[in-house]
Amino acid sequence: MKKSTLLIKNVLLDGKETNILIEGNVFASTNAPADAQADTVIDGSGMAILPPFYNTHTHAAMTLLRGFADDLPLKTWLEDYVWPREATLTSEDIYNGSRLAIAEMIKSGTVFFSDMYFDIDQTIEAAKEFGVRAAIGVTVMDNHPAAVLEEKINTILKWTDPTGGKIQLTLAPHSIYTVGSERLKKSAALAKEAGLKLHIHASETVGEVQDSIREHGMSPIAYLDSLGVLGENVIVAHGVHVDDNDIRILEDKGVTVSHNPCSNMKLGSGLFPYEKYLNSNVRVTMGTDGASSNNNLDLREEAKFACLAAKCQGRPELLPVETAFQWATKNGAEAYGINAGEIKEGKLADAVLIDLTNERMRPLHNLISNWIYSADSSCVNTVICDGRIILRDHKLINN
Amino acid sequence: MKKSTLLIKNVLLDGKETNILIEGNVFASTNAPADAQADTVIDGSGMAILPPFYNTHTHAAMTLLRGFADDLPLKTWLEDYVWPREATLTSEDIYNGSRLAIAEMIKSGTVFFSDMYFDIDQTIEAAKEFGVRAAIGVTVMDNHPAAVLEEKINTILKWTDPTGGKIQLTLAPHSIYTVGSERLKKSAALAKEAGLKLHIHASETVGEVQDSIREHGMSPIAYLDSLGVLGENVIVAHGVHVDDNDIRILEDKGVTVSHNPCSNMKLGSGLFPYEKYLNSNVRVTMGTDGASSNNNLDLREEAKFACLAAKCQGRPELLPVETAFQWATKNGAEAYGINAGEIKEGKLADAVLIDLTNERMRPLHNLISNWIYSADSSCVNTVICDGRIILRDHKLINN
Repeated sequence: MKKSTLLIKNVLLDGKETNILIEGNVFASTNAPADAQADTVIDGSGMAILPPFYNTHTHAAMTLLRGFADDLPLKTWLEDYVWPREATLTSEDIYNGSRLAIAEMIKSGTVFFSDMYFDIDQTIEAAKEFGVRAAIGVTVMDNHPAAVLEEKINTILKWTDPTGGKIQLTLAPHSIYTVGSERLKKSAALAKEAGLKLHIHASETVGEVQDSIREHGMSPIAYLDSLGVLGENVIVAHGVHVDDNDIRILEDKGVTVSHNPCSNMKLGSGLFPYEKYLNSNVRVTMGTDGASSNNNLDLREEAKFACLAAKCQGRPELLPVETAFQWATKNGAEAYGINAGEIKEGKLADAVLIDLTNERMRPLHNLISNWIYSADSSCVNTVICDGRIILRDHKLINN
Repeated sequence: MKKSTLLIKNVLLDGKETNILIEGNVFASTNAPADAQADTVIDGSGMAILPPFYNTHTHAAMTLLRGFADDLPLKTWLEDYVWPREATLTSEDIYNGSRLAIAEMIKSGTVFFSDMYFDIDQTIEAAKEFGVRAAIGVTVMDNHPAAVLEEKINTILKWTDPTGGKIQLTLAPHSIYTVGSERLKKSAALAKEAGLKLHIHASETVGEVQDSIREHGMSPIAYLDSLGVLGENVIVAHGVHVDDNDIRILEDKGVTVSHNPCSNMKLGSGLFPYEKYLNSNVRVTMGTDGASSNNNLDLREEAKFACLAAKCQGRPELLPVETAFQWATKNGAEAYGINAGEIKEGKLADAVLIDLTNERMRPLHNLISNWIYSADSSCVNTVICDGRIILRDHKLINN
């Protein structure tokens, strides 16, 4: 079957106007002739093409709890508000909450999210409908009965991606304080057996680290390492409270850290140790966490928060905007094994078209700076995922 | 002459659908009958009405330097980039930069800005054209020749507001490190004589405080107080590095502090002492500072930064979102003597209509939380200033 083609004409790429040809789901040319033929042609005049965002840690359906409980200490927020409310959510709620999340993410330039929640079939269905990429976590907690766990293992072993390439499952043991050592070890083994990424919260709060040291005699990262959990397939969400030894472990094992500044700041978890990570070889990516602790799913705003949080204590040169942009784009794609995150021939065709006529993008001294520091979703004209247009003129295509 | 009337039907106010009647530039009724007659009728269905933002510290035309020099130490940024570039700006540039700024501010829900720059006629003209409120600073610096200063005094004494009520001049001695004691005292006296607000940068950086202590034997706030500059007409921009004595002075003299979190964080100036201010009676307002150190003029994002910066060091309950919202709305209006910032009968008719169908505003557990923590300019459907519509369906009326 002939591959469908998409031509984006007169669009700004790396400071020059060019024509971009997409064949199937891949960038075929970033310098196509103006008279190239294609099934679909977009006029990219007045727009810049950039890689879109890859949201490496969220709980999509928690949009349902947006604004439900703010400005509270973590324990009160979780135990008195979030958990009781979550206990009332139906499968239909999860479906609707996931749709709301995905719509919001696309409109702000995101084409992928790594999720950790429940009723995963609902979130998979929503992701499929909107045409985005997703890594859907099969959660593991100690309070899951053995039969539930058995069922989850079966799900994983017999699962096939209904989109033929855009959705993957991940193993998602929630954290070291909700999953004991046996289940952590089994999760790691199963992830390796099934070739899955493993997605886990770790080192989010000071309390978690203190508890780990008291119970295990070591930090959460060292503990996970001692159980054989850590490897190149692992994405640790948060990684706020890490010491030099933790950083060395993360480096040695090739672990990815998903940084979620808004959630960490809003819940008072603390400031990310930017300098430590920037001086290391640890791959850092960006996530929004759930809408209940953020309260949006906008990685552009998240990247701005990262940059300003890095600088706020007297270091304006720390975390240049181009680095945060790479965390939110290429690094996120790489962490999940997606050959995307750059507008380059041979890469998977994921892109955003940014409206350069929007006041927030003018003047154009520095495209990346304008996009991260100044823009907002009103600047996102078009979003392309896997070679298909999923947002055009600010409107969702598959809604 | 009969006053023009504007009716907003079926709009959400304080959790209830109502009809809002504006007569001339004032809210005449917040509970008008559904069949009320008006020259203009807006359908507010699916929208909430809120007070708009009052940006209490900016340099509007610095939009021209947006993204021009990022991620640099303050001194390098200012001396090697900003000042040389500013020296090349023409009056036409200032006009265009001001227009760009005002358009961006309106679209993100702001109806007022307090400016401190040069070529003020250009910024006044731009504000007049777009129909916004403004406080335009007549700057004073020691490097202004005496003749220039004389001219400025003349400007002030014979100036009349071309809009008949929306624009005011302010006295704007730049700072204690660019203006000596004599000119500071004269500025204060002139402001009092002419009944103007006085707008000045102070206590922005640690270096400024250290220099002040070395040169004057006291903090910038104490120094300004010793010169008789401080009073209820004074708006201090930044106020980051203040001690308990400074807070006491600010309280005693009824000074307003304009908080600019993005600029303070991006330039590495430091984190605002939220707890000190929240425990005081000092009126705090919000500003964006110029686009060169932010890099947008969006007070919604600014208020989110304030909340999350307040919480980030382990205090999630510090600065509830409703307080930051009040800083950015009512407090800002009050500081500049504008009888607005609340949707109440008798107040000046300034308002935004927020699109509740936008994904970022759903579900609606908490309107203010959604608006500050989750929304962006894509949620701003309509902006009303002084009883006139200046943005409708996301489009500028006076463009």
